[in-house]
Amino acid sequence: MTTPIESTLRRPYVAVIGASHALEWELATAEQLGRRLAEEGCVLVCGGLGGVMDAAARGCQAAGGVSVGILPGDDRIGASDHLTVAIATGFGEARNAIVARSADAVIAVGGEFGTLSEIALALKMGTPVIGLGTWELGRDDLDLDPIVRAETADDAIARLQDMLSRRV
Amino acid sequence: MTTPIESTLRRPYVAVIGASHALEWELATAEQLGRRLAEEGCVLVCGGLGGVMDAAARGCQAAGGVSVGILPGDDRIGASDHLTVAIATGFGEARNAIVARSADAVIAVGGEFGTLSEIALALKMGTPVIGLGTWELGRDDLDLDPIVRAETADDAIARLQDMLSRRV
Amino acid sequence: MTTPIESTLRRPYVAVIGASHALEWELATAEQLGRRLAEEGCVLVCGGLGGVMDAAARGCQAAGGVSVGILPGDDRIGASDHLTVAIATGFGEARNAIVARSADAVIAVGGEFGTLSEIALALKMGTPVIGLGTWELGRDDLDLDPIVRAETADDAIARLQDMLSRRV
Amino acid sequence: MTTPIESTLRRPYVAVIGASHALEWELATAEQLGRRLAEEGCVLVCGGLGGVMDAAARGCQAAGGVSVGILPGDDRIGASDHLTVAIATGFGEARNAIVARSADAVIAVGGEFGTLSEIALALKMGTPVIGLGTWELGRDDLDLDPIVRAETADDAIARLQDMLSRRV
Repeated sequence: MTTPIESTLRRPYVAVIGASHALEWELATAEQLGRRLAEEGCVLVCGGLGGVMDAAARGCQAAGGVSVGILPGDDRIGASDHLTVAIATGFGEARNAIVARSADAVIAVGGEFGTLSEIALALKMGTPVIGLGTWELGRDDLDLDPIVRAETADDAIARLQDMLSRRV
Repeated sequence: MTTPIESTLRRPYVAVIGASHALEWELATAEQLGRRLAEEGCVLVCGGLGGVMDAAARGCQAAGGVSVGILPGDDRIGASDHLTVAIATGFGEARNAIVARSADAVIAVGGEFGTLSEIALALKMGTPVIGLGTWELGRDDLDLDPIVRAETADDAIARLQDMLSRRV
Repeated sequence: MTTPIESTLRRPYVAVIGASHALEWELATAEQLGRRLAEEGCVLVCGGLGGVMDAAARGCQAAGGVSVGILPGDDRIGASDHLTVAIATGFGEARNAIVARSADAVIAVGGEFGTLSEIALALKMGTPVIGLGTWELGRDDLDLDPIVRAETADDAIARLQDMLSRRV
Repeated sequence: MTTPIESTLRRPYVAVIGASHALEWELATAEQLGRRLAEEGCVLVCGGLGGVMDAAARGCQAAGGVSVGILPGDDRIGASDHLTVAIATGFGEARNAIVARSADAVIAVGGEFGTLSEIALALKMGTPVIGLGTWELGRDDLDLDPIVRAETADDAIARLQDMLSRRV
């Protein structure tokens, strides 16, 4: 009851991003990602609403992990009730910039235009992005895919561990 | 280890605001507020940096509570290491609007211009503000002090309980 | 018709802030401020809505000046139609931070909590604030009024000119 | 000198987005877009910095148009000096959300990750996006390109006129 909760400051913060209206495979993948991130000692960041966000929070909670949802609206109504904490920003879609900014790495699961904006903002900020069945990005002069592709949640976590181990 | 952390969504979120360079009484008051908020089952929101913010997080942590820091910068450097979670927003002073928005009530301890902006934003948003040794606000046509004044941390918590009990 | 509009980049940007529901003297003062700022070659920044904001834009427009309104909402509905340009930010009250940030000096006319937040944010950012019949700010350890007080619009402009002349 | 500048509130606001380090064709296209938007009576919105942003502002200015730059930083340093007005937001990359939000339509010229984020945010907000040599977006279940493709600046303006005429 009065056991201090350890600070998560030095743990990796990892965002799981995806649509609020999601497909079955997206929900199952997000839940598994949330669970695995918790097991790896990562803090889960997400947009705090339904679909992929809720599934990731549910998986994280089931494995005893800490999660934080960054909400677009003025209050916590509509937030996933699996989140450890939920922040009502009142910033609308611009809260996507906070999801990208506050994470050390981003994992995209499927997703629509909002997810695409978070991918792009993360890449602009130099934050690595891992993608599962998410947007393909093409440009004439782009030789390499800027997104690290993964096939499964476990595959994504393996690539994340590899990324984090190479950070100083 | 794998005990699910309960969602805090339905608990009151209470911001403790004040200066990063704070006086002794401000630090002692903020720490006591953090402790008492944790005991009351509230989630502590703060600006995430030093001084009053750090002291509140320390008190909250000591009592087993959950706290979240909303940081102005692009990363978690400089954040209080007593926070449960810390969100790097990259929004500079505009993060004060998130501190005010995400809280159901605000308790100001002393404070400088940043604190004053959070008090004003909270009042603008209709969020109640309790103050300990903080800004006096005067305007010709203002009959009532918009800030509920408290003398001690325990007094502030009593006033907070009264406010929260009157919410539906 | 195709006369290039000169860039305003090197002109002073001055915010006039105040309530959307304003008193007669506030409206008259704001309009005179808008007119005088235009005559001085300043760009008027404001919150873009009614009351003091609209009056300042009207005065600025009448004197051939350039004004910009920083709106809280998702579109330009409700904006003063005297503005040269209006920016829909979608940031709600957090747009107050942009009003403060984008101005080289701030002139407050009366005002409510939103105005108080802009005063506080400007002071926090180190931006000088001139006040006409606006908030009195008190704190135990505060010897000097952080707001430069003026009695009339012309008085405020004289103090502004003095401030701007002392900038390098 | 004291001719009132007409409000632009009821004119279309159109964002031209693209990289600050741009190729020759991107700069030439952006300048032509700025010129044509001015001729069409549109207000140019952009990110306010160099490259495509500066070129669009230059073209707009040459044709007597009104432009506004939404800057990421805390001041106007580094802003294009062809802009009618420049707003220092202090919001970093999150200013991209304001560029997208404040525009009635967006025209993307080439561009990197920042441009991609503005495209995605605009699409999320329901704002139409016209693209010239910009990002290709792919997703398994996406049948139609969400970006209206154009080959030249004049082609983009024709498509824009078509879009705007269909608005009520």
